[in-house]
Amino acid sequence: MPADFALALHGGAGTILESALTPAKEAEYHASLARPLRAGHRVLADGGSALDAVTAAVCALEDEPLFNAGRGSVFTSTGKQEMDASIMDGSDRRVGAVAGIFGPRNPILVARAVMERTPYVTMIGTGAEALARSAGLPFEGPEYFFTEQRWKAMQETLAQQARGAEDRDEQRRHGTVGAVARDRRGNLAAATSTGGMSAKLSGRVGDSPVIGAGTFAENGSCAISCTGHGEVFIRWVAAHEISARMRHLGECLVDACEHVVMKDLKPNDGSGGLVAVDADGTIAMPFNSAGMYRGRIGPDGVALTAIHRETLRAS
Amino acid sequence: MPADFALALHGGAGTILESALTPAKEAEYHASLARPLRAGHRVLADGGSALDAVTAAVCALEDEPLFNAGRGSVFTSTGKQEMDASIMDGSDRRVGAVAGIFGPRNPILVARAVMERTPYVTMIGTGAEALARSAGLPFEGPEYFFTEQRWKAMQETLAQQARGAEDRDEQRRHGTVGAVARDRRGNLAAATSTGGMSAKLSGRVGDSPVIGAGTFAENGSCAISCTGHGEVFIRWVAAHEISARMRHLGECLVDACEHVVMKDLKPNDGSGGLVAVDADGTIAMPFNSAGMYRGRIGPDGVALTAIHRETLRAS
Repeated sequence: MPADFALALHGGAGTILESALTPAKEAEYHASLARPLRAGHRVLADGGSALDAVTAAVCALEDEPLFNAGRGSVFTSTGKQEMDASIMDGSDRRVGAVAGIFGPRNPILVARAVMERTPYVTMIGTGAEALARSAGLPFEGPEYFFTEQRWKAMQETLAQQARGAEDRDEQRRHGTVGAVARDRRGNLAAATSTGGMSAKLSGRVGDSPVIGAGTFAENGSCAISCTGHGEVFIRWVAAHEISARMRHLGECLVDACEHVVMKDLKPNDGSGGLVAVDADGTIAMPFNSAGMYRGRIGPDGVALTAIHRETLRAS
Repeated sequence: MPADFALALHGGAGTILESALTPAKEAEYHASLARPLRAGHRVLADGGSALDAVTAAVCALEDEPLFNAGRGSVFTSTGKQEMDASIMDGSDRRVGAVAGIFGPRNPILVARAVMERTPYVTMIGTGAEALARSAGLPFEGPEYFFTEQRWKAMQETLAQQARGAEDRDEQRRHGTVGAVARDRRGNLAAATSTGGMSAKLSGRVGDSPVIGAGTFAENGSCAISCTGHGEVFIRWVAAHEISARMRHLGECLVDACEHVVMKDLKPNDGSGGLVAVDADGTIAMPFNSAGMYRGRIGPDGVALTAIHRETLRAS
């Protein structure tokens, strides 16, 4: 029998090194995952839609400064912050996406405004910011989005680049947040938001706002939100490929996710992972990186979270 | 046996009304398709790669003022021109894409520079323009890109909108150019470029720069370049869905294209079409709109072109 409702989310596949994880820091991360899980749960428990639940969960993730989206986004090589986000309703394939924006407090709400207030699906830069203003969405200044941690990370990456070294630190390469949900009516939805790649060139856009790559939802198969080396997720059209394997090969969610994460992405420098839910409410959270901030919640309201390879724990 | 080499291209599914097509205008369109076909043919006949052939063909299409890409791009509601493009190499899935740029003479060359000169796959706006400059690509001023025809079209659409009417003119909604090729070594490639939708809000991006939606290439299945109502092509991840049907259902190119164009896109307001080539050099050019500027060329060097439902003719 289908589950009542289900929600899963991630705070990025670029996790802190296990060796650097103090008990206090660990508790902070689990709490930062549990709050967005509960925000999504409230929507679903009240009979709300999967679309509203992933919107609430991703807004909450964007508000958490520990994750690379909204507040706490990383900095480009020129010290700017540029945010991307997308959302998809699995019941009718409506989508909204934004790229290269700065100012709106919650980029995922701008993506949703594109979906609901325009005939378009993608808007970028100042055009998207103007839409956010006309939609009355809240804006914040640079001091709101700034975190010391991200500023230092950008400077460290630039210093490494100046020495001719590539920054392989997954925590800096892979920050993204996202959520997927199945609501009581069986509708699916997915949402993804990111501050991008630390010390990137201004204008670089990864897979988060690309429907089919970082985000996809279709009631008959699955809802997917990805995190990782975005360029590779785009080249493999990762989220849509999982749906295609389910629809055309008859694979189950877990097998389709496993194939794409381990056989398509991993051998092609596509480190990262994803959260996924299918029509029955089954959840998968595979990753091929050292860790992935992740969590799930169901009708019992218990937030289950994990960071590395350990078993999910109640938070 | 596989064909030696093959190239197909389109100048957009938004064709001129058959009733408005004078013999002189018709000849102009056919000539504007034949020149880019020959540019691609030269590359392939010389033993060049599919990637270089689609680059040459799309550059030539961008240079033709009759088509909505590069020179002759449409105008946004505020009188600007914003161009998007993407390219994909089917042999290794390398990709490059740009969105929201103005200035580079050939947007497809900027997409290719993203692919070849950066670790990224997508760059937007001023960041992409800066890359084009550092790559030494040619730039042009507004007078180069301006055409009276597109300026009038924008003003007519705005006038219709002011009266509360939607502009359903396919010629204004659907301008894009693109090419696909198979070279002698059996490698596939696809490229797409557009000036977007006439009188759109600044910042709107369609399917042309979205890998999986407007452009996709993978040697084992197909290379695809789409044109049409881009939002719907994004929601159906159209180009990648054709590849998925071939890879997972074992459908041939023609059947997979037919399914996506007629069963997925058409019933969902996704008017338009695409050009496609498979590993054997088979070409498909399906469309569900009134017409699609299109053409193909093979080893014999004869440029075959068409606009509406008529048979291809030698140009």
